Amino acid sequence: MSTLFDKPLSVLNVGIASFADAITQRGGEALQLDWAPPASGERAICGALARLVNHPKIEQANAEALDRFLAAQPKLAGIGVARETLPAMGERMILHAGPPIEWRRMCGPMRGAIVGAILYEGWASDAQRAQAMAKAGEVAFEPCHHHAAVGPMAGVISPSMPVWVVINAAGGNRAFCNLNEGLGKVLRFGANSPEVIARLKWMEQTLAPTLRAGLARLGEIELKPLMAQALHMGDEVHNRNAAASSLLIKRLVPALLKSGAPAADVAAAIEFVAGNDHFFLNISMAACKSMLESAHAVPNSSLVTTMARNGVEFGVRVAGLGDRWFTAPAPRVNGLYFPGYSIADAAPDLGDSAITETAGVGGFAMAAAPAIVKFVGGSAQDALANTLAMTHITLRRNSAFTLPALDFAGTPAGIDIRRVVDTGILPVINTGIAHKDPGVGQIGAGVTRAPAACFSQAVQALAALLTG
Amino acid sequence: MSTLFDKPLSVLNVGIASFADAITQRGGEALQLDWAPPASGERAICGALARLVNHPKIEQANAEALDRFLAAQPKLAGIGVARETLPAMGERMILHAGPPIEWRRMCGPMRGAIVGAILYEGWASDAQRAQAMAKAGEVAFEPCHHHAAVGPMAGVISPSMPVWVVINAAGGNRAFCNLNEGLGKVLRFGANSPEVIARLKWMEQTLAPTLRAGLARLGEIELKPLMAQALHMGDEVHNRNAAASSLLIKRLVPALLKSGAPAADVAAAIEFVAGNDHFFLNISMAACKSMLESAHAVPNSSLVTTMARNGVEFGVRVAGLGDRWFTAPAPRVNGLYFPGYSIADAAPDLGDSAITETAGVGGFAMAAAPAIVKFVGGSAQDALANTLAMTHITLRRNSAFTLPALDFAGTPAGIDIRRVVDTGILPVINTGIAHKDPGVGQIGAGVTRAPAACFSQAVQALAALLTG
Repeated sequence: MSTLFDKPLSVLNVGIASFADAITQRGGEALQLDWAPPASGERAICGALARLVNHPKIEQANAEALDRFLAAQPKLAGIGVARETLPAMGERMILHAGPPIEWRRMCGPMRGAIVGAILYEGWASDAQRAQAMAKAGEVAFEPCHHHAAVGPMAGVISPSMPVWVVINAAGGNRAFCNLNEGLGKVLRFGANSPEVIARLKWMEQTLAPTLRAGLARLGEIELKPLMAQALHMGDEVHNRNAAASSLLIKRLVPALLKSGAPAADVAAAIEFVAGNDHFFLNISMAACKSMLESAHAVPNSSLVTTMARNGVEFGVRVAGLGDRWFTAPAPRVNGLYFPGYSIADAAPDLGDSAITETAGVGGFAMAAAPAIVKFVGGSAQDALANTLAMTHITLRRNSAFTLPALDFAGTPAGIDIRRVVDTGILPVINTGIAHKDPGVGQIGAGVTRAPAACFSQAVQALAALLTG
Repeated sequence: MSTLFDKPLSVLNVGIASFADAITQRGGEALQLDWAPPASGERAICGALARLVNHPKIEQANAEALDRFLAAQPKLAGIGVARETLPAMGERMILHAGPPIEWRRMCGPMRGAIVGAILYEGWASDAQRAQAMAKAGEVAFEPCHHHAAVGPMAGVISPSMPVWVVINAAGGNRAFCNLNEGLGKVLRFGANSPEVIARLKWMEQTLAPTLRAGLARLGEIELKPLMAQALHMGDEVHNRNAAASSLLIKRLVPALLKSGAPAADVAAAIEFVAGNDHFFLNISMAACKSMLESAHAVPNSSLVTTMARNGVEFGVRVAGLGDRWFTAPAPRVNGLYFPGYSIADAAPDLGDSAITETAGVGGFAMAAAPAIVKFVGGSAQDALANTLAMTHITLRRNSAFTLPALDFAGTPAGIDIRRVVDTGILPVINTGIAHKDPGVGQIGAGVTRAPAACFSQAVQALAALLTG
């Protein structure tokens, strides 16, 4: 004993920080390790987790699911109309972001967007009547994700809207997303004024047919190489799509000019697309959805195939757990707010765009996009650290998406619910922040985390399924 | 003495490495500091340097020159024709890259390009006669830099060629560069076959008037913000211009479509520009030239305003030393060679494109462009290290050009000949590598350094001027 206390103490403290504090206050040296027991030590969850770790059925299923995910070859195939293109789309149906939710529980921006979609479809002549219709159950609401689709923010897709069609050539599946309207007063943030509806009509009647003609001329566009190139140009293809949008334009413009579409429409379409650095976001989302959809429904797999928010709840789906959603309250985002706004004005986390993080880009690929910290907060070092942290909760690296700043390491790919619960490291998400009231629009951006409860519920469900 | 040798040795060795080696071989620890005396200890140069360090006239002159450089506001103003636009351009004159050089000493690619320019101008009907003309002194050869111009690789500009016109609104000066021909068989690498000449004619007769019409519609383009944005998108605006070229296209295309230029010409121009990720290079060079030109001819300043290579010699000019060139043999570049080629096939370092490094971008801004190491060699860490090293030989940071990966520090700006000689740290240059024979084209790319001798000569010249 005496020899120990003769020497200067050098302490590594794991767990409760006050032990380390006591030492440093007395002039000693103590390093505090950021660690907590899995699932905050909740016995039921830890017990479930213990039954899943190194479970041969899960390992085998994950290998299969990961192979499918990594092999995906998403190609931009064209632009369809939701009513004709989306599987099981109803005539009086509106799709929304995140897990299922009824009208009465929806957040402001989502209600605003749904009213806008009803007006856009001509089902009601004014906002009040549209609201009454929605309340009376005259419109069916379903998640985009139930129709192989995704939508940013409110994520509203109604039958007449044009949708990007992405084909995964390797998996034989398709995925869909609406078209990006630009910034300012837009439906996805809940705006539904006449100018918003007029823009949606123009997108349906002019933009979509024009782009369709250009794409027909061009043929399918391989999306993984384009996204990979954008990752080398400072995008993370969620909240930064400046490079990817530019690369798309470079491909599209020569084809549009040869497409035979009316010159005025071509000029208007190009101006619209060139004026919106986020234009590629919706294509990126559809590409990510197509990759993950092909990995979904692999029995016993603990791979996360969906993370999505409806502005009230954050929902997670898992490859081996079918179409069940594991939900928890959606967090409010402590990000960088535009002047005049604060977290008190924010709607809780919203949108299907976390499909990008689920696919290992977005916040997971922040190391590719250090400039994004000016938009979402933090330092360039934080951007690197976020990517590195995500390697602890993912199963592999995606060699199709390399990160120059990490000497071309692949993006962390394949979130495993077991690793999230075991490490307590939560998936990081770069996100825009919507005002809680419909129609105000974006009021900031930030980095948030998926709630732990979604993953611990999923772990318990998988344990129940596998071990009875 | 005895107490020293009782403890384990911990040695920091400065200078000759064998002292450190002796210690490590005997099991001791020694850290070798990479240091050498200034100018390899040459007394005359060290003496000159000592007279210049902290010299109040130089400090004052450098502050003035740096202010001018940093205040520059380069704007893309249009496209002129060399004969009408370049100051003091002669009718039978051909401009070339780097310091002055006579025909008989020129490297292969430069000779090839000059023969091509003579054919393009119609001064001779075949290559043999063109060569004879050049040899007989029937054409005047002068550096681009003597005409406020720059050109990549051979840098050949003849009277009929279109040139970018960049205006520095702050300094009231103008700078010029030829237009980028794309990759493959091109004049700047010394190719002069009929297809090369035909492309140059098309650029003169179709591309230039079309782009001119688009630019007229668009108005002047502020180049510093565009370059700054490209630095946030993985370019260093010398060997990577993918983002900058895309940003330019996004601006140009809508204007071209409204310009009234013939639709077929617009389509052809867009296809040409969109097909070349290096298209912006020549604009970047003209922008850098315009910034540095405004800082040139400040008496007593030790600021480097030109680094340029003619394929035989590397030349440096200094703000306080007028139009004098300080030259040394151009190095061969030990870079990444395309399959089938090696350093034995390379022409020595060539081109005015080192104007980008002189302006603190290119190799100096490699931290912005980690993906470039796949092209020029090295690791992402090397890219950061190169930028950091350049802060030791520059006078300030350029807040107009920030580097996300270094938490938005400005690019190192304003090379000081004194600091180069004092530290022995040589300016780093990202460069393409030309085959030594005319017309073969690019055979690789790499990172090279400016020769020390240019800077030590300049230090001696400045010392002679200032202190007699």
